[in-house]
This record gives sequence, C-alpha cells and structure tokens, in this order.
Amino acid sequence: MTTVLKLGGSVLTDKHSPETVDEEALATAAEVIGKSLDASPDDPRATVDEHPPVVIHGGGSFGHPAAAEHGVSASEGTRDSAALVDIHRAMGRLLDRVVTALHRAGVPALPVRPLSFVRRTETGLACPTRSVEAMLAEGFVPVLHGDVVVHEGAGGTVASGDDLVVALAAALGAGRVGVCSTVPGVLDDGEVVPEIRSYESVADVLGDSEATDVTGGMAGKVQSLLTVDGPAAVFGLDELGTFLETGQAGTIIR
Amino acid sequence: MTTVLKLGGSVLTDKHSPETVDEEALATAAEVIGKSLDASPDDPRATVDEHPPVVIHGGGSFGHPAAAEHGVSASEGTRDSAALVDIHRAMGRLLDRVVTALHRAGVPALPVRPLSFVRRTETGLACPTRSVEAMLAEGFVPVLHGDVVVHEGAGGTVASGDDLVVALAAALGAGRVGVCSTVPGVLDDGEVVPEIRSYESVADVLGDSEATDVTGGMAGKVQSLLTVDGPAAVFGLDELGTFLETGQAGTIIR
Repeated sequence: MTTVLKLGGSVLTDKHSPETVDEEALATAAEVIGKSLDASPDDPRATVDEHPPVVIHGGGSFGHPAAAEHGVSASEGTRDSAALVDIHRAMGRLLDRVVTALHRAGVPALPVRPLSFVRRTETGLACPTRSVEAMLAEGFVPVLHGDVVVHEGAGGTVASGDDLVVALAAALGAGRVGVCSTVPGVLDDGEVVPEIRSYESVADVLGDSEATDVTGGMAGKVQSLLTVDGPAAVFGLDELGTFLETGQAGTIIR
Repeated sequence: MTTVLKLGGSVLTDKHSPETVDEEALATAAEVIGKSLDASPDDPRATVDEHPPVVIHGGGSFGHPAAAEHGVSASEGTRDSAALVDIHRAMGRLLDRVVTALHRAGVPALPVRPLSFVRRTETGLACPTRSVEAMLAEGFVPVLHGDVVVHEGAGGTVASGDDLVVALAAALGAGRVGVCSTVPGVLDDGEVVPEIRSYESVADVLGDSEATDVTGGMAGKVQSLLTVDGPAAVFGLDELGTFLETGQAGTIIR
C-alpha cells in the first residue's frame, strides 16, 4: 500500500518572509519520516506500509510569491519561459532544502520535479508515475513539490502540491493520503472536526489562509481531498508520526 | 519533424577544470539555436522543422567528476541517495547555466530532468515523452541533460546524454538527430569521415576522449548513433547552424 504524504508549504516555511525555511519544523518532519522507516515489524510503532512514502511539499514562501509576481496560477498560464523557470527555480531551492533535511534524517530521498513529466490537459493533471513507482521499489523516497507544468493550450500553469497529491494518489492507487498542515485538522470553533464526508457540511467553518497562497487554503484542500479514492487525513506536525503509523490523524476526509 | 540536438559536455565546459563553463561556446550555441528559431519560411536559412528542437546536454566537467567520485556509471549503480543527488545537483548547476544562456538568446527553454521521469529497465532506458511533446507543442524548447536515473534492481545509475539522445529520438520519432561535439565529425587522419554505416568500418580511427568521461567518448557515440532510426550527424560548434538549417553537417551516421 502506497502512502502519499503532503508537507504543507506553511509548515516548512515562514510564509510571511520570502524564501525562509522553518528549520525546526523541517528537521522535525524529516526525523519523524526517518523514524517511521526504521520501525521494524516487531516495533509497536510499526508501519503497515510496504513502501516508503511519496512526499510532496507545497510552495510556502518560496513558490507562492514567485507565482504571484508573474501572475501565474493554476488557471492563468504564461508562455514566458523565463517566468516559468523563475517559479520553478524558487521551488527547486526549497526542494533542495527538504531533500537535504531528509538525507540528514536517514531518509533515502530523491528529488522529482513535476515540470519534467506532469502536464495539464483538458481533463486535469496527467501524471505518469512509472519512474516514481520504480524509485519506491528500489527503496527510495521520491520527493515532489508544487510546480509549474506545461498546460496544453495555455503555455505553463501552476500545479499546486494539493493538486499533485490528488493526481498522484489516483495514479499510484495510494492506500493512504495525508496532508500535514499548520493546524491539527479542519477546525470548527477551535475543535478538530473528526470526519468530513461532504463540502457543504463544513463550508461555513472553512476560511482562507492568511498569507499569499495562489493555490487555495484549507477550503481548496478539503475540496481536492474529497475527490480522492479512500480516506485522506489532514493533521498537524505533532500528528505526523501517528499518521505514518496508523494512517489516521486529525480530520479524516472520505 | 522533431529535432533532437545534443550539445556535448566537452563543448560547453572545460572538461579539465571542475564545474567550469566555456562561456563563449555556450553563448555561441545558444545564439545559433536562437537564430534558427527566428528564421522565417521566406528566409534562405529557414528551418524545415515544425517544432523547436529538444536539447540535451552532456555532463562535461560538472557531471563526470561527480559520477566518478561516487563510482556510479551506466552499469555500476548505487542505492546511496546522497551520492545520486550529488551527481544530479552537479548536473543541475550546468543545466541552470544552459537554460539561462538560451533565455538570453531568446530561446524559450524549459528545464527537464531525466531523474524525474526516465528509468532504466532490463531492456534499456524507458523515456515517456508526453510532457516533452506538450512543451514542443506549446512552443517551448525542452532542455534535458545526462543524469542519474532509477535503475530497476540496481538503485540508480548514470543515463548519459548520448544514451538519452538515442532513447528520446526513438520515443519522439525524431526526424533529425545531431550531436554537437568538440571535433568537426569523426576524424580519420585529421579528415572528417563524411558517412559511417557500420562500426567496423571506423573502429580503427576511433580513440578515447582525453579527460574523465564515465559515459564513453566518440567510439561510444558512434555505436549509440548507429542504433538511431534515420541519419544522425556528428559535427563541431561551427556547423551547428548548418545542422539546424539542413539536418546535415560533419559526419552522417546511418
């Protein structure tokens, strides 16, 4: 069973300060992922996963300002290759930091760049995953990120980390999908909503995220995750280990 | 008709000095590619190409020393993700320089990283090209490079620029394949051999390249290019414009 794990850009970076990593949060996330790989079958923390997870990180203060500066979003495309490369490179700088932190924590991470193989067609993101599957089979942890991708008829557009989670989960037939966020789940008056089965049931409690986010805040996450086959969890960094052990944490979206 | 153009690592870098770009050669190559895109159908220099070319560059003094340091080659794999990422990042630094030079010359280049989507199987490199084709259709120039790729059963190995030329040419059904080298073609006693139809006919005149090259010199290039459907040209930087105009330059390998 394959796990797709999104690490929110807001978790890994200070979204209010350009290209600033939250080193402590990144190191914590990397260590928790490293420990989940170490867990043996005899270990009470043992993961039932056959494979290491596929990790996708968001843009945080790296990708979002660059995308906003160039006016590029999931729907607004550009044929300006320099603009696309500018956004792509900003994300590459965060990816490098994430991969290095994972290596430090003993996680055999390999960088995978959506611009190189994902494209957006009329029907959504086309995401061929044979190479990602081969990495998993060889024991590596593929690390993807929100990126710009070629968009048929529109040049290039943004493929957010959240969009890629959904596309990858479908392409890989992922048994577990987790989104690690800055909040412990979808909140209703400060309390974690344990389960969501429809958007309407929580539309009132979903606000926008505070800082620049070209790809939608929690409302967009919930809408995307409702389209995933099987359950998806939204949880905070404190619950990342629990999610990797059990597949359950925070709010479960079915 | 799609053109696949390899820019030799030895052309773009000083192979004897670590991570040193030959700025003049890189700028020249970028300008010649830019001019070929500008050529209108009324222009005597007009290209018959429907699409801009797919560019692949070699490792030169960026990739080869890193691969040699870690003992990784096309056949010798590793499961050390940090070693693979070290080689991949060295190539990424050269890719950044190439993409920037192409942008300066007005070429709408987008970086495409083989590690993200190419894998090596029992039967060779598997190279899904739908995203590269979508880039071409949107008017972009995809720029790939020799890289490390996941290797089923062996962790990760090197996919040389030459190997990728052959795999991409086959996957794209390329009508034109060109390899821009430091020499004006395959040389026999200082003279360019105009045409090669078998390896045996030129085995005597093919030497090794001078500096560290984990992926084979001219002998390997000729052997690889003999497997390409249709003609492939090996030529020097002076003939790059001629190749892009006519598809013919230097030595033609059939």
